[in-house]
Amino acid sequence: MSIYHDQPIYLDNSATTRPSPEVVAVMRHLFEENYGNPSSLHAMGFQAEREVKNARQAVARALSVLPAEIIFTSGGTEAINQALFGAARIGRKRGRRIITSPAEHPAVLESCRRLADEGYEIVYLPVDPYGVISLRDLEAAIDDSTILINLMMVNNELGTIGPISQVGRIKQKAVSQRADDLLFHSDAVQAFGKIPLEPKAWSIDLLSLSGHKIHGPKGSGALFIKRGVALPPLIYGGGQEAGRRSGTENSPAIAGLGIASDDLQEKIYKRLRHFSRLRQYLMENIKNEIADVRINSPEQVWSESDIESRPGLPVASPAILNVSFAGCRGEVLLRSLEQSKIYVSTGSACSSRQTGSHVLKAIGLPREFRQATLRFSFSEDNCLAEMERVVEALKASVAAQRKLTKR
Amino acid sequence: MSIYHDQPIYLDNSATTRPSPEVVAVMRHLFEENYGNPSSLHAMGFQAEREVKNARQAVARALSVLPAEIIFTSGGTEAINQALFGAARIGRKRGRRIITSPAEHPAVLESCRRLADEGYEIVYLPVDPYGVISLRDLEAAIDDSTILINLMMVNNELGTIGPISQVGRIKQKAVSQRADDLLFHSDAVQAFGKIPLEPKAWSIDLLSLSGHKIHGPKGSGALFIKRGVALPPLIYGGGQEAGRRSGTENSPAIAGLGIASDDLQEKIYKRLRHFSRLRQYLMENIKNEIADVRINSPEQVWSESDIESRPGLPVASPAILNVSFAGCRGEVLLRSLEQSKIYVSTGSACSSRQTGSHVLKAIGLPREFRQATLRFSFSEDNCLAEMERVVEALKASVAAQRKLTKR
Repeated sequence: MSIYHDQPIYLDNSATTRPSPEVVAVMRHLFEENYGNPSSLHAMGFQAEREVKNARQAVARALSVLPAEIIFTSGGTEAINQALFGAARIGRKRGRRIITSPAEHPAVLESCRRLADEGYEIVYLPVDPYGVISLRDLEAAIDDSTILINLMMVNNELGTIGPISQVGRIKQKAVSQRADDLLFHSDAVQAFGKIPLEPKAWSIDLLSLSGHKIHGPKGSGALFIKRGVALPPLIYGGGQEAGRRSGTENSPAIAGLGIASDDLQEKIYKRLRHFSRLRQYLMENIKNEIADVRINSPEQVWSESDIESRPGLPVASPAILNVSFAGCRGEVLLRSLEQSKIYVSTGSACSSRQTGSHVLKAIGLPREFRQATLRFSFSEDNCLAEMERVVEALKASVAAQRKLTKR
Repeated sequence: MSIYHDQPIYLDNSATTRPSPEVVAVMRHLFEENYGNPSSLHAMGFQAEREVKNARQAVARALSVLPAEIIFTSGGTEAINQALFGAARIGRKRGRRIITSPAEHPAVLESCRRLADEGYEIVYLPVDPYGVISLRDLEAAIDDSTILINLMMVNNELGTIGPISQVGRIKQKAVSQRADDLLFHSDAVQAFGKIPLEPKAWSIDLLSLSGHKIHGPKGSGALFIKRGVALPPLIYGGGQEAGRRSGTENSPAIAGLGIASDDLQEKIYKRLRHFSRLRQYLMENIKNEIADVRINSPEQVWSESDIESRPGLPVASPAILNVSFAGCRGEVLLRSLEQSKIYVSTGSACSSRQTGSHVLKAIGLPREFRQATLRFSFSEDNCLAEMERVVEALKASVAAQRKLTKR
């Protein structure tokens, strides 16, 4: 085995990424030098507060929104919880209907389950084989009691980009016809930093994001709250984040998220090109070299002309490729690849230790394919040479497993 | 000015501390090497999961509880919110009364305000001049509808140690007489790592703590949930932390908290001796060198014989000294000390930018003293020579301000 073959290949970047050296550097600075509490009144506090302010500007710039429309949270899950529980509370005097889909992240689905216990009516729109809802279904589902539409930007298992701009238009039409305060929240955890986002243009009121999926630190996240939306806190206390999220600001993590969000447009286009190349190579070679595979993600990836992704022609984030290998068990493949220091996942990290993928169930993938699935997810650190090695290892793993099960 | 006088003196350690080199080192390791998602099924995930497990054991050891009784949160405020909202939900079928005090942290008071909006009855027991409730009042306040007693371990502004073991006995007596499920939560954010804690011996059901007050990282905290207490989550999603706190585990922060909690008994006694010396020196010299001061904290500090601190003889955590300087404005003193690179606070960081201290109001301190207050809080990094410089700077600042205001 050559030295090259000893290098680990990390292809689980939709679970988490390695923080970039720039992110680690700013965090070290905030641990070792600039360690004050941003709410303290002295210079140590003001210096830390300035870092938080800079980060808020960077995230706001990345979304083309105002800094005052961004609050920092402990991650994507907290942001999603605050969006859902907050929107439910805002709306509860007027109605109880929340429209979402069964292919959302568990942070959404479990929050919805809890809201259902509290008497909210959760409408789960059916999804097509790529996890996309029908816009006609959405229009039909919106009634006078509807207070929230919750649909994700990029599916975390399939990579499919949702028709968010069209959803925004439908929402806007409903609002204008009935002059009410229907809110639209989108979980953008797998989209932020990977495809361009225009929450304002897409009539989004609430948008959740995470830092650790884009080489920022774990424990960092943010929630965009459109000006005028009086979203209540999820966490009460000292009144940090303009009273919307209490608790000592995690200034090192926030600064790290800021660095990861800096110059994001530029980074996104660089990533898009790089990921698309890796994904295309991996997909083509898997299809050519391994029989009986099924690409579960849309084959086509997002390109610049797709900023308003078209219904009927699903496109994927180039960061994710989901594939089923007929006759194999995903977990056995994962273990086998691990022997070659190749790290992938069978689905999302959140559901990987549970009973299987709810997303693959929702898209109607037969059980034998659901159990035979791997998710490959890319980062800037990956290269084409790695994909070569992955294809070789996959070929061998799949063949070995198929041979065994045939006996 | 000598080089020595150029060194900053950080005495705002109850707001936040500088992470220790060992804490920063483990976090760097988790950023740069061991960056997997603890929920991932591959080796990168398992390695990260092991760090989380070690940290859970360290925190559990520090509290003499089981690892399964510890969940990690994004900080003390989140832990407090989960304890209060969770206990309220557990109890709501049986009753609506929650007993607390007006000298608690805003994380408690604001959560209680929200619970009051939801129909809970919040009983605020009056406090004495050191912020301590009367045990007789507590006994009288417990009725059949009482579902939660919430009283802090160490007051964050005064440093006063609450009579927690006695509160635990009263709670236990009430539970045994009525065989119900009255819960006891204690905010131990300013106590953890500074005085020995025995939640089990003190009949505590829920205890909140934070990492960044003891040289751990910001964004780290934990909640002790006694076995058998079915506390619901505050944050829903992928089911991390045994379903009690969802969201990708912030493994670097958790590992940092673990390191900060390691060998805590040993650290505590070392800190106690060190802090007591610093505090005693500072207090005596302030009293001797500056006229018209008022020590708002209990003068006596905790010692080993006080593990069940006695009512009627309030003792303080040696980490905090709260003093009023008659005729001065705390904020002006703070600014003046800042010129000498001495960093203190006027109260807690959480309330420092608001309208003044609710704690000093609750203990009945007259307005002119409330506005004239500084909080000094210590860490291992401070030394006696610094205290000398602080006394000199204080003398000069107070004299200058008094001279000005006399005109």
